[in-house]
Amino acid sequence: MRLAMCGLGKMGFNLALNLMEHGHEVVAYDIDSDLVRAMEEYGAIPAYTVKEVVKQLDKKRVIWMMVPAGDITENLLNELTHFLDNDDIILDGGNANYKDTVRRYESLLEKGIHYIDVGTSGGKEGARYGACTMVGGNETVIRKIEDLFTDVSVENGYLYTGDSGSGHFAKMIHNGIEYGMMQAIGEGFDILEKSPYDFDFKEVARVWNHGSVIRSWLMELLENAFSDDPNLEQIKGIVHASGEGKWTVETALEYEVAAPVIALSLMARNRSLETDNFSGKVVASLRNQFGGHEVISND
Amino acid sequence: MRLAMCGLGKMGFNLALNLMEHGHEVVAYDIDSDLVRAMEEYGAIPAYTVKEVVKQLDKKRVIWMMVPAGDITENLLNELTHFLDNDDIILDGGNANYKDTVRRYESLLEKGIHYIDVGTSGGKEGARYGACTMVGGNETVIRKIEDLFTDVSVENGYLYTGDSGSGHFAKMIHNGIEYGMMQAIGEGFDILEKSPYDFDFKEVARVWNHGSVIRSWLMELLENAFSDDPNLEQIKGIVHASGEGKWTVETALEYEVAAPVIALSLMARNRSLETDNFSGKVVASLRNQFGGHEVISND
Repeated sequence: MRLAMCGLGKMGFNLALNLMEHGHEVVAYDIDSDLVRAMEEYGAIPAYTVKEVVKQLDKKRVIWMMVPAGDITENLLNELTHFLDNDDIILDGGNANYKDTVRRYESLLEKGIHYIDVGTSGGKEGARYGACTMVGGNETVIRKIEDLFTDVSVENGYLYTGDSGSGHFAKMIHNGIEYGMMQAIGEGFDILEKSPYDFDFKEVARVWNHGSVIRSWLMELLENAFSDDPNLEQIKGIVHASGEGKWTVETALEYEVAAPVIALSLMARNRSLETDNFSGKVVASLRNQFGGHEVISND
Repeated sequence: MRLAMCGLGKMGFNLALNLMEHGHEVVAYDIDSDLVRAMEEYGAIPAYTVKEVVKQLDKKRVIWMMVPAGDITENLLNELTHFLDNDDIILDGGNANYKDTVRRYESLLEKGIHYIDVGTSGGKEGARYGACTMVGGNETVIRKIEDLFTDVSVENGYLYTGDSGSGHFAKMIHNGIEYGMMQAIGEGFDILEKSPYDFDFKEVARVWNHGSVIRSWLMELLENAFSDDPNLEQIKGIVHASGEGKWTVETALEYEVAAPVIALSLMARNRSLETDNFSGKVVASLRNQFGGHEVISND
């Protein structure tokens, strides 16, 4: 099938290659025209404006957006819908907040445009060679273009999750779980590092990947990381968060779910952004006042 | 090689079968003589007392203990050492606290007996068909009998971890990480369950096992669990802890490591054992006093 890929970053670029490898014709668009030209060399049909994207597609157009959540998604969507017709289909493969997705689904439905949320996991390697896709929205519409999702996913790596927003909801929870798993792994290795033993972290990750209960893709990635840098001396332990973990915690609060480990994993990331913090200063000053415990001056 | 397996529970029984399948001769002992007879049917040499275990082995004996940590390990060890000689080797495959292991190592070394800690992961299936083993103690001694560990482990699933106690230490941290990973997975599905969507949990676990970042053996086990019981209605959410998580947290405290997620995962298990708790009563009574908020009576 012919479809457009809008957004040719690490994920979109690789997904477009993946789609073409599966026999689909891809109209490639990005605000960075170098990326469009690069895609053209791989055989894609170039489009340098949103209008060109739409012109290159027949009606009942299928447009896959692979851009960051928030304003960029919103702006691209506004531009796109200006040119679209009844029964066209937009796939949102970004990490949008599911509430935004539901709002967009309803608003576009009034114009007869189908909005489908495609939660996508597996990183850039997954996008290229086989991802995991969680797809929500109108089931009839989705079933008709389902080949797209099975084609870009590994075998058994595609799921129709249900109503609009459920694909992004599932992806959000996936990322929340990811935060917790990663924090647990990080803490475990931190204790190994401070232990009286002289562990070879790469070897520990390697053995845990073979036959243990905690074998996992994340542990494999860590084994790779330790292969490159045995004590991770080349990097700082600063961990940003890009939204999905926060939304998971907000959702837990909304539905009154006890999710302390996911919440704390997010806050551990927040703490990692600081070399000092105000709560530490507050506690140190109190300890000093009631107990005369030493404080360390800022000098 | 001929060796003894002491303790024929789920792990020891399967490890003995695994060892025999790899051409080793196993002297099988358990306080439950039915298990010894069952092992004999599989071709093991039966031993109904510790003395018989020792008599069935030539000097430089190798004895694999696979019994629960604590008193049972201590008692078996005391009985064994009564009969053992210089250069005999005891392998402790249980989940012992590494400090106990180091103490035992040193005390047995005075008698010329080598004590080796074998952290073992992979559950009973792993014990039977290929485990993950983390082995600490005297390197020269371990290298001589290393075939035992490579034979019972999956390929690449064996590691010599270092000095005495390091195998049990690594296994302890493995279990601490396991607590955190499992709690994060649990919380994620809890939010899915309370969401406005009608997720098929088995299908979500299935898709997350194919191409996603959080694919893991634990997620595969959960997919199996949801296959048997789609909403886990047949079981209660009561989660016991068998020691390793607690030791991990104690070790984090000792070495002043920030490990909040592993600690909280343990405490979430503690909370799961109660249908009500005293901290809840305390907080409810305070809220009632300062704000007049309703309390629920025990009747």
